[in-house]
Amino acid sequence: MRVCVLHAAKDLRLEERPVVPLQADQVRVRFGAGGICGSDLHYYFDGRVGDFAVREPLILGHEVAGDVIETGAEVARVKIGDRVAVNPSLPCWRCRACQAGRTNLCRRMTFFGSAAVTPHVQGAFQEQLTAHESQCFVVPRSTPFGVAAMAEPLAVCLHAVQRAGPLPGAHVLITGSGPIGALTCLAARHAGAARITITDVADPPLAVAGRIGADETINVARAPETIEPYKADKGQFDVAFEASGNPAALATCLDCTRPGGRIVQLGMLPSGAITVPLTKLTPKELDLVGTFRFHDAFGMAVEGLVSGRLDVAPVLTGTFDAGERDAAFAAAADREHHMKVQLVFDA
Amino acid sequence: MRVCVLHAAKDLRLEERPVVPLQADQVRVRFGAGGICGSDLHYYFDGRVGDFAVREPLILGHEVAGDVIETGAEVARVKIGDRVAVNPSLPCWRCRACQAGRTNLCRRMTFFGSAAVTPHVQGAFQEQLTAHESQCFVVPRSTPFGVAAMAEPLAVCLHAVQRAGPLPGAHVLITGSGPIGALTCLAARHAGAARITITDVADPPLAVAGRIGADETINVARAPETIEPYKADKGQFDVAFEASGNPAALATCLDCTRPGGRIVQLGMLPSGAITVPLTKLTPKELDLVGTFRFHDAFGMAVEGLVSGRLDVAPVLTGTFDAGERDAAFAAAADREHHMKVQLVFDA
Amino acid sequence: MRVCVLHAAKDLRLEERPVVPLQADQVRVRFGAGGICGSDLHYYFDGRVGDFAVREPLILGHEVAGDVIETGAEVARVKIGDRVAVNPSLPCWRCRACQAGRTNLCRRMTFFGSAAVTPHVQGAFQEQLTAHESQCFVVPRSTPFGVAAMAEPLAVCLHAVQRAGPLPGAHVLITGSGPIGALTCLAARHAGAARITITDVADPPLAVAGRIGADETINVARAPETIEPYKADKGQFDVAFEASGNPAALATCLDCTRPGGRIVQLGMLPSGAITVPLTKLTPKELDLVGTFRFHDAFGMAVEGLVSGRLDVAPVLTGTFDAGERDAAFAAAADREHHMKVQLVFDA
Amino acid sequence: MRVCVLHAAKDLRLEERPVVPLQADQVRVRFGAGGICGSDLHYYFDGRVGDFAVREPLILGHEVAGDVIETGAEVARVKIGDRVAVNPSLPCWRCRACQAGRTNLCRRMTFFGSAAVTPHVQGAFQEQLTAHESQCFVVPRSTPFGVAAMAEPLAVCLHAVQRAGPLPGAHVLITGSGPIGALTCLAARHAGAARITITDVADPPLAVAGRIGADETINVARAPETIEPYKADKGQFDVAFEASGNPAALATCLDCTRPGGRIVQLGMLPSGAITVPLTKLTPKELDLVGTFRFHDAFGMAVEGLVSGRLDVAPVLTGTFDAGERDAAFAAAADREHHMKVQLVFDA
Repeated sequence: MRVCVLHAAKDLRLEERPVVPLQADQVRVRFGAGGICGSDLHYYFDGRVGDFAVREPLILGHEVAGDVIETGAEVARVKIGDRVAVNPSLPCWRCRACQAGRTNLCRRMTFFGSAAVTPHVQGAFQEQLTAHESQCFVVPRSTPFGVAAMAEPLAVCLHAVQRAGPLPGAHVLITGSGPIGALTCLAARHAGAARITITDVADPPLAVAGRIGADETINVARAPETIEPYKADKGQFDVAFEASGNPAALATCLDCTRPGGRIVQLGMLPSGAITVPLTKLTPKELDLVGTFRFHDAFGMAVEGLVSGRLDVAPVLTGTFDAGERDAAFAAAADREHHMKVQLVFDA
Repeated sequence: MRVCVLHAAKDLRLEERPVVPLQADQVRVRFGAGGICGSDLHYYFDGRVGDFAVREPLILGHEVAGDVIETGAEVARVKIGDRVAVNPSLPCWRCRACQAGRTNLCRRMTFFGSAAVTPHVQGAFQEQLTAHESQCFVVPRSTPFGVAAMAEPLAVCLHAVQRAGPLPGAHVLITGSGPIGALTCLAARHAGAARITITDVADPPLAVAGRIGADETINVARAPETIEPYKADKGQFDVAFEASGNPAALATCLDCTRPGGRIVQLGMLPSGAITVPLTKLTPKELDLVGTFRFHDAFGMAVEGLVSGRLDVAPVLTGTFDAGERDAAFAAAADREHHMKVQLVFDA
Repeated sequence: MRVCVLHAAKDLRLEERPVVPLQADQVRVRFGAGGICGSDLHYYFDGRVGDFAVREPLILGHEVAGDVIETGAEVARVKIGDRVAVNPSLPCWRCRACQAGRTNLCRRMTFFGSAAVTPHVQGAFQEQLTAHESQCFVVPRSTPFGVAAMAEPLAVCLHAVQRAGPLPGAHVLITGSGPIGALTCLAARHAGAARITITDVADPPLAVAGRIGADETINVARAPETIEPYKADKGQFDVAFEASGNPAALATCLDCTRPGGRIVQLGMLPSGAITVPLTKLTPKELDLVGTFRFHDAFGMAVEGLVSGRLDVAPVLTGTFDAGERDAAFAAAADREHHMKVQLVFDA
Repeated sequence: MRVCVLHAAKDLRLEERPVVPLQADQVRVRFGAGGICGSDLHYYFDGRVGDFAVREPLILGHEVAGDVIETGAEVARVKIGDRVAVNPSLPCWRCRACQAGRTNLCRRMTFFGSAAVTPHVQGAFQEQLTAHESQCFVVPRSTPFGVAAMAEPLAVCLHAVQRAGPLPGAHVLITGSGPIGALTCLAARHAGAARITITDVADPPLAVAGRIGADETINVARAPETIEPYKADKGQFDVAFEASGNPAALATCLDCTRPGGRIVQLGMLPSGAITVPLTKLTPKELDLVGTFRFHDAFGMAVEGLVSGRLDVAPVLTGTFDAGERDAAFAAAADREHHMKVQLVFDA
């Protein structure tokens, strides 16, 4: 079988790998579609994500769906022929974080396609993917692979919404309209947000956000004055989602969130010196909370995609064959023309 | 009557003021004792607190207790002769924050001794203080004035503990052992914290923290290596209270709080560029929440002081007559020898 | 002006009353439409609601919208010509419940059309209604009166949803498909519920629930076996809303809610002996929480009605002129043909 | 080795059993002390607890501490010679409840000494007890066995307190002063409760509650009028713990808890018809929540016992040798003279 493996920055190869025997609790999934995430882009273009450098060949990918083609001896949850969205997370279930129900913070987590540990955890861009049965969430066979593969990024956003507290009636700001920002629109709307404003520095991603559910889109590069009125009276939004990782965007959130409001940090902030009005944390008694991946939100994402209540179609902008992987990664980085780009084998 | 009024930095005068008639819902309180707070110190030494400069004569003080000597026509809650701790907060009760039960965030708050608005709200260092009856919390006449006057700073700390979520079983870090840090020890212990570590850059305040309930005191200037083991495995503390306003201390909190933990920011951080590992907010999924003054915690503080369950004696280090106000402010700023300093009239 | 006043059971009269001068903070509203609620029905048919008997003439009604025709001298929030949904609640803002942000539990609440206190608080079925300005929520003039008047019962249901905790991903049971049960479907869907099952003992109300958003409707009188599978494995629903006040329905909720789940009691249960499996509270560690009226949910309801995100049209089944008030009340009690019935003056 | 095994009501035998080999992740513990719980009493006197009848010989007991005498090949958490409090719970870690961090609701729970499943899960009254290593919590060797064995009932009460929400400042009612009620005093005080009133129908248990931390004790059989003032103004307590399982006591809680307050049901209520004013759930918007065993509270209990912050001495009223097991069970049922009775082997 073939896999998409990164050897160094911009050196992403299609290689043959042997099919290994399944363990009793494992499932083999024929790759249907797999999305390219921001961390995949960082690995591809920079050879690293933050502190985590690619030190050995790394199969990328962690947003994937496919069909079950083989099951281990003890597998009971899925059967051959099932279409599944694959959760890239395999927690230990036993550490303190797992016991507290926060498996996303598991200290012994195995997560597809990550160079955070050595040896690296290999990713999902494999013609035949091996997963633990608990990672496989069955969807109807009528669900397009590309839709099912969106369960992972959608779960990230549903989890961010869980971290935000109740949204019914809330006026929401989202800074950054990449795939995560746009899907957070969808997730926040689904959870009852009354009004959603989203910002970015480019128009095309904002147009997607508008189609997926934002009430107002603001290009803060082109029309920075548009956000100003939201700073009035110590801030107008009840909840902000910071989905860019840009300190300037966090500053906007700190300025525009009302006293007693909540900011959910989705994007990873830089580690060096930053200039943000953190001094407002105290007089405005703000909550600034990080969010990381997801736990039970993966199942919620699958259910929402299958029922059609969460329609991700506006963000799906391109599908490329693994043979054209470099073009795919270039497209995924092209914010003018693309939002979420997915790979397939033998398109 | 005499009042303690600041005209400019280090120009704190004892002046005569007329006694004005009470409104129907007001109470006149003869000053018993009043504590000097960090913001009073900033006004005194710098003529400003952060962005708020003293632009007109400002009577300082907002930590006060005394005896009721006159009541307005409609006052029902207190009577002449009652000893009261006076809550310096008078919210509007009607704005959105008040309606949500967060009166500390009231947009039309009147708070004793504040230059945040113009005309300034005059403070509590007055021989005869006028307050709304709802600000007066009766204590037994046997309660020393100095103890009753601690209700305000103690309420700040009890409110911070409310913001921290449940503490039973928690391992707690407090950075900064001034009066607020030390009282947060007391408040966190009272709420069930299992183990409390407190840091500072000076030994005498840490000694007070040890007497009031800290299990471990660390001088991070003298023995910075002592805190290092708490950074292991992504952080060891469940909850951190940052009570210094120093970005380096916030960095310590971000490093030493475990994934999924919570940091309560009590001290006001500087407004310019800071270097703090905010990047850890996301992978560790931390909560960083500001805390500001208090609402129902004032009543809790009064009850705890009166019952003796919250014993503030270790932080009460000096009482000065208003005539020696400059010596009092010098003492309040002297971390080697003092913690909480209080003023009285005619000691 | 004319008012609809109840003198005794089934003795509902249209009477002339003088128009009284406004106080400075009051508003006069020309009645546009007003819904008949379950408590109005009890007053009309039984002369009482639970323990509260009608002991003096009582103007009924508390679900009302209209146009502002006069404003008191200090009114700033609304102006003549504004269309408003009128919140029937006027809390004291100062009692302990109000201070905690739970104004619905205000101990000195004034609530339109209630015999709970004597003298009774007169209700909203008045050609010209007087309200405090804070009770008036402006809606666009294009909003039909009948839709705006639904803000009140919708707020009850949005508040119940607030009491339920987060609903995204939740499988929800609602017992009782009267107006409140049906609107709870709408509110729960709006807050992200994944799947909603609703029960009743009659088909027509269930049909309305189906149109407003229920995924499954069960007639437990006709097909009681249909609910049985939901009792499997200690219960299948994450959250239940008990909207009937019937102990048998509460028993169903206790049986069908999973361990760790939550039951929100909307309907008032009888006060005598009941047979419900409360013993399951402990081994299943259930939450059984009451819900009462609303506080900030009224504004949320108005915003949802105006934006069109909360579409109450399926429950609006009849409008009657005040002259035909007896027919209106008969219709409101006729579950075969009606759901929410509203009154107008001079239809 | 000897075990204490129940064959039928009042037929509790001391029998020899073989020592079986350990599995790799198991630990063998020499019994130090083990408490008799209410469920043990029901098994002993009635041959059943609620619906769960003893259908085969059942070793009783689930409150136990001892010394490690052997460890399985893969055990890393404890070593031979360690003194341990043994958590009787072994959850599956993988079901939905476990994944949500509520392992106490695990659908495949193994819990010592329970006839809830067949074959029964054998209990802890064994001279040499086998446990999974994760069940063993090390305490200092200086901790008396009898104190360490209190971790289990204390954990039940700490968990109940977790279910109650924040207690600092709260006025608390506890109905029922058996071991669980008394330990709930201790746990509620530890979590910051401001004032604790406890009721019972007998004086001796109330005297113990007074010694362990209750501020007020009320004998509702002898002086029922004493509780009446707490019903004023719709109820005076913020939080109630119902620790008796008696519907009359639940009625007291419903009457005496203030609007917006919370009732934690600890005792198992009868399953048939009961007369309780559940009708108050709605207008008072009460929370009535069940509590069941514990999850992370076991570790909190151990830490509190070891640090001495949770002093259970007042409830430890008797220790009996396993040879005098009938006398021990009689004592455990004798509320005049005993509270918590513990068994030892070879006293």
